[in-house]
Formats: sequence, C-alpha cells, structure tokens
Amino acid sequence: MKRPVKVTILGASGYTGIGLYRLCEAHPGVEIVAVSAERHAGKSLAEVFPQVSHAADVMLVPIDEAIEAGADVTFMCLPHGTTMNVVPRVIETGSTVIDLSADFRMDTPESYHRWYDLDHVAPEYLSTKVYGLAEFNRDAIAGAKLIAVPGCYPTSVQIGLAPLLKAGLIKPDVVIVDSKSGVSGAGRNPSQKTHFVETNENFRPYKVGREHRHVGEMEQELTRAAGTDTCVIFSPHLVPMNQGILSSMYVDLAGDYSTDDLLACLHQAYDAERCIRVTDHLPETAFVRDTNYVDVSARVIEGTGKAAVFCAIDNLVKGAYGQALQCMNIACGFDEYEGLPL
Amino acid sequence: MKRPVKVTILGASGYTGIGLYRLCEAHPGVEIVAVSAERHAGKSLAEVFPQVSHAADVMLVPIDEAIEAGADVTFMCLPHGTTMNVVPRVIETGSTVIDLSADFRMDTPESYHRWYDLDHVAPEYLSTKVYGLAEFNRDAIAGAKLIAVPGCYPTSVQIGLAPLLKAGLIKPDVVIVDSKSGVSGAGRNPSQKTHFVETNENFRPYKVGREHRHVGEMEQELTRAAGTDTCVIFSPHLVPMNQGILSSMYVDLAGDYSTDDLLACLHQAYDAERCIRVTDHLPETAFVRDTNYVDVSARVIEGTGKAAVFCAIDNLVKGAYGQALQCMNIACGFDEYEGLPL
Amino acid sequence: MKRPVKVTILGASGYTGIGLYRLCEAHPGVEIVAVSAERHAGKSLAEVFPQVSHAADVMLVPIDEAIEAGADVTFMCLPHGTTMNVVPRVIETGSTVIDLSADFRMDTPESYHRWYDLDHVAPEYLSTKVYGLAEFNRDAIAGAKLIAVPGCYPTSVQIGLAPLLKAGLIKPDVVIVDSKSGVSGAGRNPSQKTHFVETNENFRPYKVGREHRHVGEMEQELTRAAGTDTCVIFSPHLVPMNQGILSSMYVDLAGDYSTDDLLACLHQAYDAERCIRVTDHLPETAFVRDTNYVDVSARVIEGTGKAAVFCAIDNLVKGAYGQALQCMNIACGFDEYEGLPL
Amino acid sequence: MKRPVKVTILGASGYTGIGLYRLCEAHPGVEIVAVSAERHAGKSLAEVFPQVSHAADVMLVPIDEAIEAGADVTFMCLPHGTTMNVVPRVIETGSTVIDLSADFRMDTPESYHRWYDLDHVAPEYLSTKVYGLAEFNRDAIAGAKLIAVPGCYPTSVQIGLAPLLKAGLIKPDVVIVDSKSGVSGAGRNPSQKTHFVETNENFRPYKVGREHRHVGEMEQELTRAAGTDTCVIFSPHLVPMNQGILSSMYVDLAGDYSTDDLLACLHQAYDAERCIRVTDHLPETAFVRDTNYVDVSARVIEGTGKAAVFCAIDNLVKGAYGQALQCMNIACGFDEYEGLPL
Repeated sequence: MKRPVKVTILGASGYTGIGLYRLCEAHPGVEIVAVSAERHAGKSLAEVFPQVSHAADVMLVPIDEAIEAGADVTFMCLPHGTTMNVVPRVIETGSTVIDLSADFRMDTPESYHRWYDLDHVAPEYLSTKVYGLAEFNRDAIAGAKLIAVPGCYPTSVQIGLAPLLKAGLIKPDVVIVDSKSGVSGAGRNPSQKTHFVETNENFRPYKVGREHRHVGEMEQELTRAAGTDTCVIFSPHLVPMNQGILSSMYVDLAGDYSTDDLLACLHQAYDAERCIRVTDHLPETAFVRDTNYVDVSARVIEGTGKAAVFCAIDNLVKGAYGQALQCMNIACGFDEYEGLPL
Repeated sequence: MKRPVKVTILGASGYTGIGLYRLCEAHPGVEIVAVSAERHAGKSLAEVFPQVSHAADVMLVPIDEAIEAGADVTFMCLPHGTTMNVVPRVIETGSTVIDLSADFRMDTPESYHRWYDLDHVAPEYLSTKVYGLAEFNRDAIAGAKLIAVPGCYPTSVQIGLAPLLKAGLIKPDVVIVDSKSGVSGAGRNPSQKTHFVETNENFRPYKVGREHRHVGEMEQELTRAAGTDTCVIFSPHLVPMNQGILSSMYVDLAGDYSTDDLLACLHQAYDAERCIRVTDHLPETAFVRDTNYVDVSARVIEGTGKAAVFCAIDNLVKGAYGQALQCMNIACGFDEYEGLPL
Repeated sequence: MKRPVKVTILGASGYTGIGLYRLCEAHPGVEIVAVSAERHAGKSLAEVFPQVSHAADVMLVPIDEAIEAGADVTFMCLPHGTTMNVVPRVIETGSTVIDLSADFRMDTPESYHRWYDLDHVAPEYLSTKVYGLAEFNRDAIAGAKLIAVPGCYPTSVQIGLAPLLKAGLIKPDVVIVDSKSGVSGAGRNPSQKTHFVETNENFRPYKVGREHRHVGEMEQELTRAAGTDTCVIFSPHLVPMNQGILSSMYVDLAGDYSTDDLLACLHQAYDAERCIRVTDHLPETAFVRDTNYVDVSARVIEGTGKAAVFCAIDNLVKGAYGQALQCMNIACGFDEYEGLPL
Repeated sequence: MKRPVKVTILGASGYTGIGLYRLCEAHPGVEIVAVSAERHAGKSLAEVFPQVSHAADVMLVPIDEAIEAGADVTFMCLPHGTTMNVVPRVIETGSTVIDLSADFRMDTPESYHRWYDLDHVAPEYLSTKVYGLAEFNRDAIAGAKLIAVPGCYPTSVQIGLAPLLKAGLIKPDVVIVDSKSGVSGAGRNPSQKTHFVETNENFRPYKVGREHRHVGEMEQELTRAAGTDTCVIFSPHLVPMNQGILSSMYVDLAGDYSTDDLLACLHQAYDAERCIRVTDHLPETAFVRDTNYVDVSARVIEGTGKAAVFCAIDNLVKGAYGQALQCMNIACGFDEYEGLPL
C-alpha cells in the first residue's frame, strides 16, 4: 500500500479551510499533518467549528509551526496579500503548494498591482505557477510545485466562455458577465454587508463594471482562450443564500450560429469531463450545491446577433476547495475525482 | 366633507388583492364596497388571510355580485385571459377600471396574441385604455375609464431606460435586461417551482431571451419612449426572497457620455418625482421593500462604449398594488401619494 | 391647530431608531427636532440608511447636541448600561423620556444588578418610571415622565400569560417559555453569530434556562400579574428570518379548565384592544409582520393537566418601536393608534 | 470480491428517494437494480432531478416492474397508507424491506388506527418488524426482513430522552417536546403551506398538543425505554429553512440531579457511537446538516426541578435516508458507516 500523502492546511478557520479539512479527512490517500489558524492557535478545530465536534483532538497551530510539519502538499487558505509572503517558505520545505488565494493567479507583477493594488513580493513565482482550472490545465498541474486555484467567479465564466471563444463562435471584444453569488463568497468574517438582516430579503449589486478584482483574472484567462484581447464587463450581485454562483453572460455571435451550434461546441469541449455537465435546461445553483459539478448551457437570442450563456457552480466547491482537491488529486497521481463530492 | 370613493376589489385572494385591500382600508377617502374571490366566496377575508384577522366581517362574494355593488373604482386582480371577459361588464356599470392583469397593456390585438397566445375578446378597449405608469402618463390617467397597470418587470425597465432613450443618450437597437425577482412575482398558487425547498438556497434563470411575455410590453413602451424600434433581450431570474425586483440593464451608449451625463439625465427626469429616487449608490431591493419607491442609478463602463443601469422596485408595491393605488389617486383627484407606503 | 410635539431620537443607527424615525416622520402630530448617532455624527441619515435616501438633509448629531434640541419627547435607542447615564440629563431638560433600552425596566437596583451585572447609576428613577406595556398600564403612561418600553420577549410572554395568571386559571410556580426570534432582535452590529452564512439554514437555541436577561423582567411582571412569585424557564432560539417572535409557553392548569375557558379569559382581557387579537388559529409571525398587532391563542392538552399558550409579535414593532410610539401617543394625548402600522 | 447487494428504491421522486439514490450510487457494495416513481414512470431520473443530470440513463419504472427486479434490499419511500399494500408482495420476492413510511412503526393495528385513522391491511407484520433506530436496535436489525425506519421527529426525541428515562433520571409521566423542523419534512408535493412566500420570513406552530401522528410513535418507544407509560406533549413548528430538526424538550427530574449527571448519562449511552455526539455546547441544526450526525445536550434548570434536553438532526439524513442506509449496512453485513455522510 502506498504511503499516504501528507497534507497541511494553512488558514483553516474560514469556509474553504474547513471544507478542505472535511474532504481530506475522508480521502483514503491523505493524512492531515497540520492545520493552522493564527487567530485560533491553541484551540481545537472542534472549538472553532462545532460541526466537526468529532475532531476535538485536532489542534490548531500557528502558521510557522504548521509549515514545519513536513507536508507533501500544503493548501493555502490565507488572505491575498498575506499569502505571497508565506508561499516561498513553504516551497523551500519541498512541499507542493495549492494556493486558494488570489496572490499567484495573475501572470505578471504589473497585472497583480493593477488589480490588487499591492506590489508583489514573490514575482518570480507568477510566471512559473500553474493556473489550476483542472479541466483546462491537467498536464501542467500534474507536475506543478505551485498551483493557483482560480477565483470562484472566474471559474464559472471561463467554463462558460472559453470553448466558445477558442472555437471562434463568439466575439472576444466585450463580454458582459452578470454574476450572482451566495454570501459565503464574502468569507467568514462578519461585516455590516454580511449581517443577516441586511442581506436576507435583499438582492444587491456591488463593484459593477470593471471594479471587481476578478475582472483582471477573467480577462487574462479569456484572452488566453480567445487568442486575442478580451474585455469583460462584470456585475457581481449578492443573493440571500449561502452557496452558489450563477453567471449569466451576454456575448456577440461571430457569425450566424444557432443554439445548437453553441451547445455542440460545449458538448465537444466537455462531454469527456466528469465534473462539467452541458445541459439543455437552464442551470440552477441548487443543482450543483455541495458538489464539484459545473452546469453550463447557452441560448442564441434570435434576431439580435447575441447569445446568452449560463453557468452554475458551487462557489465553495468547484469555486474553491473542491477544485483545490481536484488539483491535488492530479498533482499527486490519485484518481482525479477521488474524494470529490459528485 | 367629500363622499368617499366606493371601491371594489375583484380577485382578492392573491398578493396584489390583499395588498390593495390593506391600502384601501387605511385610505381616508375610500370606502370598500365589495371584495370578490370566486374560489373562496362565502368565506370571510380573515379566513383566507389571517394577517387581517381583524377583518372577520368582510365577506368574499362571487365576481358577479361584486360587480353589482356600485363601485366608483374597480380594481381587477384576476388572471390574464379571464380579465378581458369581465372588464366590459364592469365599465358598463359606470365604474372606472384599474386592471392589474396583462390583458389591456398591449396596444393591439395582434401584439396581445403574439405575446399571450390568445385572441383578445375586447379589442376595442386596447386603443382607448391608458397605460398606468403613473409618472409617465399622469394627464391621461386623470380622465381614464380603463387603466392598465404596468407589469412589474416592465415598470423597473422603463423607469431605468425611458429617459435615456428619449434623450438619445443610449442606442435603442438592442438592450439587455437581466432581472431578478422575489418569489411573490409568481403569484400565490402553489407549484413545484415555488415550493419552499426548491426555491430556498437556489438561484435560477427562467424563460430567457425573448420568451417571457413581458418582453412585448417592454418593447412597446421603450419603442414609444425612443421613438424608434427597440429590441429587448430579457433574462428573468428567481431570487430566494419574497419581494423585490432588481433589473440590471446593459446598453450601448449613443455617444461619448459619462456616468455623470446619464445621472444628470435621470435627475432631470425624476427630481420632481416623489416616488423615484436617482441614487449615487447602487440600488438594492431592501431599500425599497414594502414601499412605492423606485431607486435607479447608472454607470458608464469606461472603455467599452457601454453603460449599466440599475433599477430596484418592490414588485408587489410599485410593481403592482402601490402603482394601482397611485393611479386611483390620480384618477379620483386625491393627492397622488395619499395612502401610499413611502 | 395644535402645535406639533417635538421629538428627538437618540441612537438612530439601529433598527429601532430608524423604525421610530419612519413612524415619526409620517405621524401628523409630530415634528422631529433632532436625531443622534454618536458614531455617525456628521453624516446624514440617508448615508446610514439608504432606504430613507429621501432624507438626505436629516443630519445625525452627537447625543449632547441632540439633548439640547428642546424636545417634548425623547426616544432613547441607546444600549443598556449607556442609557442610564443619559436619562437624568434628558429629564432635566423637561423632556418626557421613552426608553427602549433595558436600563429602567427593573424595579430595584438589586434586580438590575442581578440580571445586568451592573450597578445602577440612577436608581431613584427605577421606582418612579412607568413600565410601558401599553395595554396594561395606560393610565400611568398618560402622565409619565419616564417610560420603560418592555423587552421584545417579555412583551410576548406577558400578553400571553398575564390574564391567565391574574384570573387564576394557570399555576404561577414554574412556566416554561420556548421563544423563537428573528435575527433583528440581536441588533444591527455585525458579529459571528449574526453573519448570514452562520444563521441562514440554521436554527439554534442560546442562553437557555435562566441565563437570558429577559428572565428577570418576565418574572417581575408575571409575579405582579399573578400576585405571587412566578418562576420562568426561558429558552430563546434564533430563527433564520429578519423579524418576528413566537413564544410557545407551557403551563400547569390550576383546575379542570378547557381550551374554551382559556380563550374566554383571553377574549375578556383583549376584545376591547385594537392591537391584540385572540385567535382560534395558531399564531404565526408572518400574520403580524411589520405591524403592531399581537396574535395570541391557547390550547389545553387533554389528559395532562397542562396547556400551551402561543403568542406572536413583530419583535421590532410591538416588541420595540411600535410600542414606543403607542406609549408616546398615550403620553401626549394623541389617538393611541395614530401612526401605528396596523 | 463479494457480489454487490442489489437495491431497489420504490418512490424515488421525493426528497428521501433521491437522497437514497445518491448514497446508494456512491456506496461501493451496492448495485441499484430498479428505481420506481409511479407518476414519472417512463422518464429518466435526470428529468425529475436535474441535480443528477449525469444519471440520464436511469429510467423510472412503475412499482410493479420494480418489484420484479430481484432486489436483495428494497427501500420503500412511498406514502403511508399506500406502503402497507405493497410491503407483503415485496417480502414475498425474498427481498429485505427497509420502509421509510410510517406504516409499520406502530406495534399494533389498534395503535396504527388510533394515530393514522386507517385499518391496517398487513397487521401480521407489525409485531415482527424491527424498529430501525440503528443505535438502539442493532442486533435485531442484523437479521430483519422488515425494518421500519423511525420518523424524523421521533428520532430526535428518542435519542435525547431514552437514556435518561432508562436510567431513571427523569420522570416519564409527561414530557414536553417543542420541535422545530425545516420545510423538507413536509415532503416535495407543493401546497399552500409550503409555498415559498408563505413560509419564508415566517415561523409557525402546527398540530400542537397531541394532534401530530408522531406522538403515538414517540410514546410507544419512550414507554419502552422508560418501562412505564410515558405521555408526550408535542408542538412541532416550521422553520424557514430546508433541512434540520431541533427538539427542545422539557422534563421533570426524578431526583436532585445536576447537568453533569445528565450529560454523564448521555455520554455513557453514546460515547461508543460514531453518529451521536454528546456536546457541551447547545446543538444547532447547521452543525449536523447533510450528515448522519446527531448532536445532543442537556441542562438542569436550577431551582425548578426541571431540565431541558436539546437534540439536533438533519431530518432528511439521520431522520430518513441516512438512517435507512445505516440499517441496510447493518442488515447486509457492511461496515455500519459505509457510505454515510459523516
């Protein structure tokens, strides 16, 4: 029997950290060797998350101690800005890093500065990291030492649009992305905006146009898919629910294509993919909740030269910890879907 | 003292009917003379709606009986298709009709047939009715015998786009409307789609593109505002909340206009309006919940030649019974805002 | 025409403060002369609450400035502990004080210390204040200078149990109160416990038994009603909704009484009350939402010697700002129900 | 390698049926041989539940056809009343039956008639069935041919109270159970009561006292645990959330016991149980959501002679399909926790 892969989770007090803990705990090939949560160091994981009250003996340690635990794979669930300070030290220990923050998603320090308003402290890793959208980048992920797990919104947008751009069915110039996300996308720290009473029975847009940081990541990756500059108009909205993203995307057709043409293109891209389902019905977030599935569909709007593409994911699973585990499975030679909620 | 206006409500067992009842009950110039609910005839209103358990002596009567009650104003809260059969009889009694169904919103029997797939049985009223978007049509409403209260989605779209189209700031060719509505918009009759468990923790699009019946109404009225044919791409979505619509609209600028230009245009159109608030912040549905307010704002997306316009209403109030009461106030010579939740 | 009553609201940045503002704004006999919010002083009310974006010229001032505004009535929406430091100064200005905090609800400094773990700094007012449960205390409220508005949970409990205790139909020894509240009861300040994701799709008890501070207030007032010591077991629970309290109360019958006997007793107590509705059906929070209504009902459980009493209120309205306005109406000689949401 | 256990699911169009399908699909020792849904026969499972759109080739068949499929184990997810007509035929095929309906939970035809108001058509099975509360009845389940899976509410009540009654720490005479359930407990068929708008932002009691059918099951099983007649007062309430039950139970102490005594008793009963967690903190439904865990805790209320016991389960998992699978694992000799969400 193969020895288990030793895993450390840095930053386990948020929704992605606890999600990864639960998946790794149930994964037959993984041994968790350290779990950190700076603010809660010294407590047990069960004290911070009573839902894992069976894990009363899993102690949270400071980051520094966790890094020394000798992990084969380190999941980074720390905030952006902080993460880039820690990653180089983790890589020096020989551990593979799977980073759920935004710090290594951009390809250049300039674009990182443009969208995150920070100078990158480890720019040498930006060009060598692998972008961890599993279905698009399997070969590179297999040998990677640093994997940047995509953002939740960009995952839904790329899976919807990349094949259509690549195939030249839609125009790259300007794509309109109207996304709706559950509140867990805002993280676990309380704020006025995530206070129950302010969010329940409310629906609101925020950071619309080109304000949201994910615009940079979307444009970088869609441009790569299209082979030419792609501009994104992005309107995120907050839905009074815990989990789920639906992106409704409006694009200009590059020719006289039908709904069938678009669906055929998506089927060709994804029929071999176990996590991505091209659907005839319109995707709904509940159909993918708590799973690593992605549902995607498209409709040409007759007489307008435009089409609408819809993509639903669970922002915490395929949009974060599920995709991170999928990357680990690929990187470590496991079955890609081992331990994934499907 | 003026004698009170006698009011009848036909179809009081739905959300708009009970909403009108409560507003009329509190309105100082109104006397309710009959309330009908075919299916519940013989019960009291309090039996159907325990929230008005103080109204245990208000008996629900059949439509035929209600029509004979001698109302000055009759609110019609019946389904489309049914309504057009009843309206002529009500008008013959001398009552003013304020119709919340869709049956008289279209201008021609052809367009009614195109969007509702029914032959109109009272086509002569289509051209003589007044479209009851209060802020746009005050003078006509004042003398009207038949007022067609706008649909909920079309209200939000017209208030957002009509002034910009009229002023020529945006192109009429194709406008993209991505709307999100609370579940009360689907009415009070139970269905699989409105079952709590199917809708809670879910976000879903439905009837996207040019499928939804409100597309016809939007195009008719936006075309009127623009003075030229306007095409609408419309994607409605269901939000897990009771009330509220947010419409996020994407339009092509007709020139090199800035956000300030768009806001100035909206301010000019609406600063004298008590129910419409042009906001710097992005509209949220909670800010207008249970009120007749409309919040509207706009953003030019730099470098794209496009703009986003956001409009929030309460679908039941400004989108239905609030606007209906506003029309009644105008038609009957009351202060326009008497009894309106503001 | 009578000159309007001048009103000041101290602490307007919470849910009760803004609620009072909206009711007072619409009240025909009231003029708002000052609105304070220490933390937001200098901003307009519209900046803090976009739902009143029409109130862009209402400036929030510091407490000290607001006290000097010459109000006839001052609503105190400050936290307990803080409030008792301010009330004496306000009373010295000649203003009537209507206090929504807990600081003056208890009758003695000892009981205040027992339940709030603080030494009272203005104990002389504890015995002279009037407890503002409007239906029970009208005469005293009419001439009061300091009115302590009851807590939300105690309001629901007293309206359900006080008449039954007074009439000797139920035993006072131990009553079991299992209450369920919407999240607005926890206030507007964000915390982990009120974070949307932690509260949505969750149901939880907290501070059960005799831990919650409202136990002291319930026991004080039920003991007064019963004329003998009454002990309360209290289990509050948090419901994933914004507003509403349902208290389910389990009591021992003092004799062989039937459901009809209990309902008759409640009817006798409340049939003349416009805000309290004794119902045959079981109360639900939605039936009283956004209103000052109280729905109450009772059931004897055959063969057990016990009964269940159910009472529903809107925690923010009858449980806070609605009842406060009702007290003001009584204290100032207005119609008691003027401006109340009914 | 052992041949897989062949499983049939009768009645797969509800929440328990689809839940069982997903667990069985992922269970390494199970092969699904038939899935029935009378009303949807001829459709694929993916048509009825788009969340399993990967299962487009799983066809729904009529019950009669499903019974002939040669299953080793048949899960019955049919309504009560219907089920008792089908079970004998299934047993005759040699299949083990695991019944999620209420038809075989009662021990006698008289008690079935008392609580379900129907004559039992297969009374001979009532005394031979095994009651499937896994932790209490393992040995009997191991050899059973007919297992009656407990009701959701009774599961939460028994796990909370049975050990305390057995140990004589609390009095059996009358126990008060105040339960709160998510809406999925009402099934998947739409009704006015489960319409989103009527349930969202609402909290309501229903069938309180001794009206609900689960009272009979609770009393039968608690009486068995106590060894003497036990009477239950039961107030179920509907919570605006999808899943979860919290039962708050109020009992009389049989002696001068402390919170520690009660917790020690629960620990002794459950510390060897993997699915039941005795917690110091108060149970919350979110901590057990989507899992087969049960969280239970207790508090003595000082000075009252009473205690409160709290128990949280997921009504669909431990309260239905999870417990059913646990029974199958025991009955078929699998690891008891194989494939259970933990």
